[in-house]
Amino acid sequence: MQMNLKIVLVEPLYQGNVGSVARAMKNFGFFDLVLVNPCRLEVEARAMSSHAWDLLENATVVSSLSDAIADSSIVIGTSGVSGSKFDEHLRVPAFSPREVKESLSGIDGNVAVLFGREDQGFNREELRLCDMIMTIPTSEVYPIMNLSHAVAVVLYEMSGMTTGELPLADAFDVRLLHTHFAEVLDDINYPEHKKEKTKLMLKRIFGRACLLEREVQTLRGIMRRIQKNLR
Amino acid sequence: MQMNLKIVLVEPLYQGNVGSVARAMKNFGFFDLVLVNPCRLEVEARAMSSHAWDLLENATVVSSLSDAIADSSIVIGTSGVSGSKFDEHLRVPAFSPREVKESLSGIDGNVAVLFGREDQGFNREELRLCDMIMTIPTSEVYPIMNLSHAVAVVLYEMSGMTTGELPLADAFDVRLLHTHFAEVLDDINYPEHKKEKTKLMLKRIFGRACLLEREVQTLRGIMRRIQKNLR
Repeated sequence: MQMNLKIVLVEPLYQGNVGSVARAMKNFGFFDLVLVNPCRLEVEARAMSSHAWDLLENATVVSSLSDAIADSSIVIGTSGVSGSKFDEHLRVPAFSPREVKESLSGIDGNVAVLFGREDQGFNREELRLCDMIMTIPTSEVYPIMNLSHAVAVVLYEMSGMTTGELPLADAFDVRLLHTHFAEVLDDINYPEHKKEKTKLMLKRIFGRACLLEREVQTLRGIMRRIQKNLR
Repeated sequence: MQMNLKIVLVEPLYQGNVGSVARAMKNFGFFDLVLVNPCRLEVEARAMSSHAWDLLENATVVSSLSDAIADSSIVIGTSGVSGSKFDEHLRVPAFSPREVKESLSGIDGNVAVLFGREDQGFNREELRLCDMIMTIPTSEVYPIMNLSHAVAVVLYEMSGMTTGELPLADAFDVRLLHTHFAEVLDDINYPEHKKEKTKLMLKRIFGRACLLEREVQTLRGIMRRIQKNLR
């Protein structure tokens, strides 16, 4: 069975790109498209989607990224910026599509791959919601890819990836784990100015680990035990 | 050093696609674009090329595919049709972009990757000029990719491929080898109705073998010796 993967476009600006994304998805056998506050989709979107207009018509439109990824165990943000100079915890480490594919092999669960605005990409809040950051290796001379090209390259890599045996943790349980960690940081009087960065780092670590259901339960068990002993 | 690879678009119909192809090329660090009888390239082509308009302006325009590939040691045709049912020798075997990359690893020479018309692809004569056929693995539901998406996927795979130590045979010498083989077929009274298919099969075999200079010389030596002994 093909991996349960959805494509989320965050505030796409150009309807032609949205149509082209739908076409690339159908080319590689992916059908679940979610649009967060998209531009108007009219004749050009449909023309560019070609024989994938059904996919475009069935796309889910939502008004916030949180809604788009509510049921996703793993949220992967695609960033064109390597960002080695800034936002270290936000964008680093960035994985290639092939590395992401390898991380996901053998598991079963809901995966969301996010693509940002054509001009600005993601804002910091959106990056915070990502478990993993993926960057397509491009030339330094001109690294900014067309949105639908980026989707095509990612799905080319992801296609043929089959569902494995190991169930990914539910999105809900992963959120509970992070809440739990945040509580422990409070309990141990972790320095306030480091909290946000540390929480983000934990999100990145657990994100790229693609936590399984039983692993999340075990980690939450440890957190509970720590809290109990602290009190 | 990046592999010496050029992209040849055969009679592209839509200028937006040509511009998008230029952009994808620059994204992955490829700069040599050849256009065979292209459509008119005006405002839309330039808009879609974005920051790769220099590449578009420097594209070589020719009137025949033969001119486009005159200096290419290996000619790779990209076909969206798996064609298992027809034109067996023309389209089979088809390699994935990754397999093509593996065949080319370690060699040094001029490689041309060809993309056909948006609606009709290549005609039979054009397919005959190809040493290898490459097909991007797509969904059977909707296998026809947008032209620039196909280029982006292929160049994503080919990028980072460095020149090796082993010099590919010159295009000129490879042509002599094929002429030589054709002569031998004549000399041995090879059945007329099988000749074309057999020549094409040889082209495919030597094409996917990515013959080196010294190998072509050795093969031509064998041909000469056969001819000498036949006469």
